[in-house]
Amino acid sequence: MKIHGQPHRSIEAEHATRSARIIDQTLLPHVVEWRTLRTMEEAAEAIQVMRVRGAPLIGATAAFGLYFALRENATDAALQHAYHVLHATRPTAINLRWALDRVKRVVMPLEAAQRADAAWNEALAICEHDVETNRAIGKHGLELFRAIQAKKDDTEAVLNVMTHCNAGWLATVDWGTAISPIYQAHDAGMKVHVWVSETRPRGQGASLTAFELKEHGVPYTLIVDNNAGHLLQRGLVDVVIVGTDRVTAHGDVANKIGTYLKALAAKAHEVPFYVATPVSTIDWTITDGIREIPIEQRSAREVTHMPGMNATGAREEVLITPEGTEARNDGFDVTPAGLVTALVTEHGVVAATAEAMGELRGRI
Amino acid sequence: MKIHGQPHRSIEAEHATRSARIIDQTLLPHVVEWRTLRTMEEAAEAIQVMRVRGAPLIGATAAFGLYFALRENATDAALQHAYHVLHATRPTAINLRWALDRVKRVVMPLEAAQRADAAWNEALAICEHDVETNRAIGKHGLELFRAIQAKKDDTEAVLNVMTHCNAGWLATVDWGTAISPIYQAHDAGMKVHVWVSETRPRGQGASLTAFELKEHGVPYTLIVDNNAGHLLQRGLVDVVIVGTDRVTAHGDVANKIGTYLKALAAKAHEVPFYVATPVSTIDWTITDGIREIPIEQRSAREVTHMPGMNATGAREEVLITPEGTEARNDGFDVTPAGLVTALVTEHGVVAATAEAMGELRGRI
Repeated sequence: MKIHGQPHRSIEAEHATRSARIIDQTLLPHVVEWRTLRTMEEAAEAIQVMRVRGAPLIGATAAFGLYFALRENATDAALQHAYHVLHATRPTAINLRWALDRVKRVVMPLEAAQRADAAWNEALAICEHDVETNRAIGKHGLELFRAIQAKKDDTEAVLNVMTHCNAGWLATVDWGTAISPIYQAHDAGMKVHVWVSETRPRGQGASLTAFELKEHGVPYTLIVDNNAGHLLQRGLVDVVIVGTDRVTAHGDVANKIGTYLKALAAKAHEVPFYVATPVSTIDWTITDGIREIPIEQRSAREVTHMPGMNATGAREEVLITPEGTEARNDGFDVTPAGLVTALVTEHGVVAATAEAMGELRGRI
Repeated sequence: MKIHGQPHRSIEAEHATRSARIIDQTLLPHVVEWRTLRTMEEAAEAIQVMRVRGAPLIGATAAFGLYFALRENATDAALQHAYHVLHATRPTAINLRWALDRVKRVVMPLEAAQRADAAWNEALAICEHDVETNRAIGKHGLELFRAIQAKKDDTEAVLNVMTHCNAGWLATVDWGTAISPIYQAHDAGMKVHVWVSETRPRGQGASLTAFELKEHGVPYTLIVDNNAGHLLQRGLVDVVIVGTDRVTAHGDVANKIGTYLKALAAKAHEVPFYVATPVSTIDWTITDGIREIPIEQRSAREVTHMPGMNATGAREEVLITPEGTEARNDGFDVTPAGLVTALVTEHGVVAATAEAMGELRGRI
């Protein structure tokens, strides 16, 4: 998608140096700073401190990280070490493991001398695959939006879409998952407006989704997370669509903390609640999201401090609580399948049930 | 309650000068600055910009404001003018009107020369009445807490209470409404722990409730508002208790934006959801909260900017969104009576139903 009118991806391969350029997302929305990753350690650090985030982008970055490691040392031991370091960066996102496994599967049968080249090519393929996947998710999501629009009393009225966190192109290589249908609707001339939920503590909605939509010219209004129930109650939301970090084989969905509250409110007001996800985010090995998905515990500082831009235009972090306040910071929550209207995948729209997902698994 | 070990009220009459001292709550938790109100305009400004907030404290401050006006000019016209200016400061809180009406009813039959004295005494009486009311709310709430504790598998375990916004002593003259039973439980030796929800956009949980509990020594943990559903889902909350700005005669409850999401989540997990309220906050003239309670629209800046303390210890406000971002900022939401386990009033615990509330009205 575009930044200042120029097309970009969130991670761009530099072929001459075999490095990868990323936008340092911790500095958005105020500063667009590109950063070149050249080593496995740099890739791991970028994931860990969330310079890159979003399940698909984490996977792509980790794939390049494995390439960087193999370029230095292509032994089995080095491969294992890099796999473990990269895998340990974020525990909830399933795409991380998916991408690492995909590269590992390709390089393991090869001789050491061939491994780095193969890993580089596989990282590139993962990126291309992600872009095509998200384009397809957007296409299926757009059909859902059109169906919802067609049922409104005034079919010319603006379609109000609510989202949470950032499941846009900055969370993937391009297009995004939950935001992909919004871009496609906007580009197709549909009147679409987005309720962007701030997404405390890290504010990915306020900083990243707002940034994306602004740069692409999609109308949006920022709200605090607390406002979601009220807007749903007042009939100001036609559809909720979010991304996910892991889906179980029975349709439970782990996503950014606060997703569950939106799902409960959408259900209470019979507003469709869709989860946009590539099939790579489905963890077929587990069924019960509440029992089986590990929830990352993040630092209290994300809750007690708020970064932003001060009056002089400088980046500054302010303390918003009494000094010494303890905070609990669960990074994700689990929305039970019963609250999910459907999953929007690159292979079509699928009910969040064991049966429908089993059928999906059989045909992919 | 206490600040740095010294007993205080949130509004303190200064008898020698007939003025009223308030804590400027916009500067909490980092600075405790007292401010003296001497004119109606100062009282109105303090309410408007939320130096004082919380339905009962707003009412008490407005009562002093009416006194200040009458001290200058005790004509009917001046009284009406002051009533309207003060009433217009915050549209949702019913106590504001209640307090103004109470003073007006006392002074109207009097001759102009007697009005100021009578208004001063009535403002003092409103403060004393509020303190006694909140003490009684706390006593009834404590009984509920004890009953919940008695039903736990481990009756020695900590009682986990979740609250929203600030319904503590800073929102009233003393004790608080929702926090009053927490103080009384703590003082009675019960092991109680509070989940303090940040309460974006203005952060009254992070700044005020955290400040109060810290100063009083009650164990608490701060969470972002998004975390409430997850904690309820995981069984980490025994009871939710909040304050309110207006209750309808059928039990619908207007409270700080985000309350409704907590109520939905509490219901989903069968955790009791109590609303602590003086009967003065009940608006007997309306029944349907969603249709009839006006929802205050506040400035977008509260959403797009965050005040706090920077690294040098100075107060600073940072922009957390792309420049030019539009935001919607509903100050309150309405929780339908069906989600409210009961109201905790100074006259006892009352079901949030037309019948039970009618019975309450009959006996008060």
